[in-house]
Amino acid sequence: MAAPNKVTAPALLDLTIDNITPNTVKINSQSSDRRLTYLMERLVTHVHDFARETRISTDEWMAGLNFLVQCGQISSDVRHEFILLSDILGLSLLVDNINHPKPPNTTEGSVLGPFHTHDAPTLENGANMASDPKGEPLVCICTVQDTYGKPVEGVKIDIWETDSSGHYDVQHSDRNEPTERCVMVSDAKGEFWFKCILPVSYPIPHDGPVGKLLGKLGRHPWRPAHLHFMMEKKGWDHLITALYMRGDPYETSDAVFGVKKSLIVEPQKIDSATAKEYGVPEGSWVLKHDFVLTTDQETDNLRDQLALEAMKKQGLNLKLVDHLPVPDLD
Amino acid sequence: MAAPNKVTAPALLDLTIDNITPNTVKINSQSSDRRLTYLMERLVTHVHDFARETRISTDEWMAGLNFLVQCGQISSDVRHEFILLSDILGLSLLVDNINHPKPPNTTEGSVLGPFHTHDAPTLENGANMASDPKGEPLVCICTVQDTYGKPVEGVKIDIWETDSSGHYDVQHSDRNEPTERCVMVSDAKGEFWFKCILPVSYPIPHDGPVGKLLGKLGRHPWRPAHLHFMMEKKGWDHLITALYMRGDPYETSDAVFGVKKSLIVEPQKIDSATAKEYGVPEGSWVLKHDFVLTTDQETDNLRDQLALEAMKKQGLNLKLVDHLPVPDLD
Repeated sequence: MAAPNKVTAPALLDLTIDNITPNTVKINSQSSDRRLTYLMERLVTHVHDFARETRISTDEWMAGLNFLVQCGQISSDVRHEFILLSDILGLSLLVDNINHPKPPNTTEGSVLGPFHTHDAPTLENGANMASDPKGEPLVCICTVQDTYGKPVEGVKIDIWETDSSGHYDVQHSDRNEPTERCVMVSDAKGEFWFKCILPVSYPIPHDGPVGKLLGKLGRHPWRPAHLHFMMEKKGWDHLITALYMRGDPYETSDAVFGVKKSLIVEPQKIDSATAKEYGVPEGSWVLKHDFVLTTDQETDNLRDQLALEAMKKQGLNLKLVDHLPVPDLD
Repeated sequence: MAAPNKVTAPALLDLTIDNITPNTVKINSQSSDRRLTYLMERLVTHVHDFARETRISTDEWMAGLNFLVQCGQISSDVRHEFILLSDILGLSLLVDNINHPKPPNTTEGSVLGPFHTHDAPTLENGANMASDPKGEPLVCICTVQDTYGKPVEGVKIDIWETDSSGHYDVQHSDRNEPTERCVMVSDAKGEFWFKCILPVSYPIPHDGPVGKLLGKLGRHPWRPAHLHFMMEKKGWDHLITALYMRGDPYETSDAVFGVKKSLIVEPQKIDSATAKEYGVPEGSWVLKHDFVLTTDQETDNLRDQLALEAMKKQGLNLKLVDHLPVPDLD
């Protein structure tokens, strides 16, 4: 264990606009956890700079604190308003990009959103994960490969989407079991395929404080139609992503900034041979997609490299410990 | 009403670490409310810079969002965990200093804290606002003056303190009426006086997420003994302050950074004549204090002046509208 930082607590008296920041940073620097010390130093500096640069009024400050209370109070086991807030502020996209940088020609990440659950059933290849009869049938035929084009077997794949009304199961108060979601495992050929419904565009929940904020900003709450995927296997970089349906009216104005060109796909009307092969009705939609995973090692190396470049560019005297920046005091 | 800013929404595709911030700022700039646009621009910039400078990990991000949910969920009508969070981050002190700058020789502000209520009874001069028999009796004899030393009549004064166990009434689950708090009104001589108990040092509520954070930072949750005052009268700058008892062990390490030298006072053992005059027992404590209020005009002028100086120093192209900075687009 690292020795505690030798910080003598400052005498906290007569704090002013000009000296509150260094004094708060100092009193927060008594822990032996250098990463925590660094996070708090940056947090306090940015929060204080925000207040100083905006000369925030007492009313605005209180409105902000009350907004945060409201976000917490509308949150529940099946709703996380702060993830939504992070999403609409572009923070979620940024955090994903920082933590999961992708080499060219690998599958890019996208935002997790607040609707992943841990109770989805594990289904066999070919199963139907949707129970909404009003949805248009879609069969997805996918593979998981590594960066050399070799199949990756045994990847656990979480898949989730809304029903045809644009709501996830957890948004229905009478939900008694998971629907429009499942877990699959890639087979020896790296393949997984499943039946679902054609995704539809939908608004993020906008009946709460985050929706009110979007309204004040003149922003719409819509997301283009997409299917969520989360892929994990030991030794491989955890992938949170989504496939977006080409031509959606919100393709270039996603309320949560998740769309990437490489993730836009175009389902086709199925041909008779494929319909027969996969046992789906004529007239169904079909989507074929190959996902490309990176190894933990590939991602760690790239992340470290990008972090070091960014730290150098920012002129910060930092070093990486466990892949995360801490002040370089040595 | 100002014309809407002419912002063309950008195409939000392929957002990266480097382009997410200007794009988020742009999509947030469609409102005609320039102050809101500016607040959001600064907020998004600081939140993104925080993520980039710390290369925040996905686990840290999620821990942060869950911390915020917890703060919201422990909050109630009588507990505001986000005010506590603002207090221990030094933000509350900073916001007070920005909004209520004080000319020399006027009463300085201090933090509001989360325990002011709106149900305190209005009491006559000389009344006893405390009902805790274990507290040491204290009589406070105060005046309210303007910057020329003239009495200010008709000031509404909220006063609140903990009981002798260091808890505010609202922290007792069996509270059925306000205790250790009252409202007084200054008389024609600017005077108000009341009986209470000698304040004691106490820890801020540390059974919630903010308390856990203090623990991780190696910080104690204590505040030095103090009496809260809030003074308001139309035309006069709203004053939130407190008087701190000299010699308290936490005098220079207040968990919420509220202590100022000019607010430290020293109650005395009462002399017989004064005890008789104010009808309190021999052996009581007595505290005499003169508060000096500034007018709204004085404070507005000083605040504007300091804001303009700060904006100039920061090199920001801003102007003041209703005393608050907005980008100077004209």
